[in-house]
Amino acid sequence: MTTSNSIRATIPLKILSTGAAIPARCVTSSELDRRFNKPDGYVQRRSGIEHRFHITDDVSQAQLAAMALSDALQRQQIAPDSIDLLISAAAIGTQALPYTAAHILKVSDLPQNIASFDINNSCVGFMTALEMAACLLNQGVYRRIAIVSADLASRGLNWDDEESALIFGDGAACAIVEKGDGSSGILSFLLETYPEGLDLCEIRAGGTRRNLRVGMEDSDFLFDMKGKQLFRLATTLIESFAERLLQQAGLSMPQVDCVLMHQASHLAIKHICKQLRIRPDQYVDIYRYRGNQVAASIPSVMHEAWTTGRVHAGKPVMLFGTAAGLTLGGMVLLP
Amino acid sequence: MTTSNSIRATIPLKILSTGAAIPARCVTSSELDRRFNKPDGYVQRRSGIEHRFHITDDVSQAQLAAMALSDALQRQQIAPDSIDLLISAAAIGTQALPYTAAHILKVSDLPQNIASFDINNSCVGFMTALEMAACLLNQGVYRRIAIVSADLASRGLNWDDEESALIFGDGAACAIVEKGDGSSGILSFLLETYPEGLDLCEIRAGGTRRNLRVGMEDSDFLFDMKGKQLFRLATTLIESFAERLLQQAGLSMPQVDCVLMHQASHLAIKHICKQLRIRPDQYVDIYRYRGNQVAASIPSVMHEAWTTGRVHAGKPVMLFGTAAGLTLGGMVLLP
Repeated sequence: MTTSNSIRATIPLKILSTGAAIPARCVTSSELDRRFNKPDGYVQRRSGIEHRFHITDDVSQAQLAAMALSDALQRQQIAPDSIDLLISAAAIGTQALPYTAAHILKVSDLPQNIASFDINNSCVGFMTALEMAACLLNQGVYRRIAIVSADLASRGLNWDDEESALIFGDGAACAIVEKGDGSSGILSFLLETYPEGLDLCEIRAGGTRRNLRVGMEDSDFLFDMKGKQLFRLATTLIESFAERLLQQAGLSMPQVDCVLMHQASHLAIKHICKQLRIRPDQYVDIYRYRGNQVAASIPSVMHEAWTTGRVHAGKPVMLFGTAAGLTLGGMVLLP
Repeated sequence: MTTSNSIRATIPLKILSTGAAIPARCVTSSELDRRFNKPDGYVQRRSGIEHRFHITDDVSQAQLAAMALSDALQRQQIAPDSIDLLISAAAIGTQALPYTAAHILKVSDLPQNIASFDINNSCVGFMTALEMAACLLNQGVYRRIAIVSADLASRGLNWDDEESALIFGDGAACAIVEKGDGSSGILSFLLETYPEGLDLCEIRAGGTRRNLRVGMEDSDFLFDMKGKQLFRLATTLIESFAERLLQQAGLSMPQVDCVLMHQASHLAIKHICKQLRIRPDQYVDIYRYRGNQVAASIPSVMHEAWTTGRVHAGKPVMLFGTAAGLTLGGMVLLP
């Protein structure tokens, strides 16, 4: 039924199913207290995390991604052979060449010869992939698309840097989408890049910049985060960004049913909720038990919202995140 | 004028301009003969290349990409501030985090805060990005998009492996696109992944697979190509792939005005031309003076075709390539 008050999607998109996967190894903050010879409770206070998950060396990023994919397929009994495109939206890939989606495809239940590619703009890549998928589906290029974000931050942690080492966790999450009937979909989408923040969160090695040919050192392989500067730059930008995103959707924050945010750090989350006037009942949290899961963070919190009855047909959901780049991404979605 | 014979694009897309850039340092095959103590003419015979270009250590992938972007903007006097999205479609990125487009944006003439992201499926990424761009433009998400592919293969060459070391060159190329009036655009697009070929062309380090935490060695940073196996797998696939691609466009090979192929190696090019019955007058070649430019290869040959009067309005152009993955990509385009 269409009433004068009902909202229609600008780009039809139906989230058929979501899935998630976490590694078997749970790393509690108490364990890290002992490891770093800190008083009991120190790591939890400092990080805002009770536990996060770190993968063991024998499990690959592609395997974790394939677990999230399987989960999404099984939850709604979706036939793997109905998927005709796999998009990987990880922030950090498996290796320099080839791309990550091919690695995931190989170990997945999906038909082996479907189309695949990576989309990457750091921690907001999943949202960007959702937008791309919606456009492809509406153009009739594909009928059913699987998007998966798997990130293994633990493989790049600098244990000498408390600020970043304590907050990251590994994880993967997935969404399976099709065009649907238009009653659900994207209301607005916004991406902005602020490359003056390029070096505030980075891993310098892994490509053409730092390598055997031009030189590299161990620190080039580890997360290098200038947390305070990143926080300062992000907080000057997010308020007007969120305004533009909501305006594009013809909505204001109080009309948003739930907010799925990149779970960057407990202090960032707290500050952003305050700055954007996000009510506690709007906000969906998984940070305390997962940490910052890089690009897997947004789809993981989406999976949480989708599977716990936190989203309701016709009620707008806002996805939002700041990402290494510095890149801001946001989406308002009708579930 | 529309006649019953005229072809219409399935997805409207107008290539407004193309651009390219190569590094200043030209590496002749004679120079490599001397470097490897080979008889005169050996490297040229073996590689099919007269010269290729390798970047110096002081120039970055982003700078080369920005040069190609500038070239495309200037050739058609396009205002930089008319671009609202930058897509990087390199096969090998700048670093593990953040993504390459943010690096390019920072050193480019484009407005600094536009949207940006990477698309990657190895050497066919540019084509994939073109398809994405067309869908985004038709959905009204953006009005004008710049796609740039810059690859610096020289930073991962294994000089002990003749097969790969002699054939790669560095380069960048760009296309600036908008929706246009529908008289030009995409007729068909096809992507297929054959992950059984995943390890036939790779650089294992650079991400979560080989790193400080799980271990790595020098060879993990260098191109590792099993040329013969790659060639064998690709040649069993390309004929039926090309048939499906052309069928989707409602065309047969003789109706294609020109073929822009990923310039992988002179033997591969020769074999594919024979297998797909591509006439010499259909084929556009830059390999002899560039080598295999990885993901920059297809847009570079597109730039060559667009700027030398090799394409004609209303006459279909076929883009085609095999990529590490193993991934096959193809597109039929009305220029």
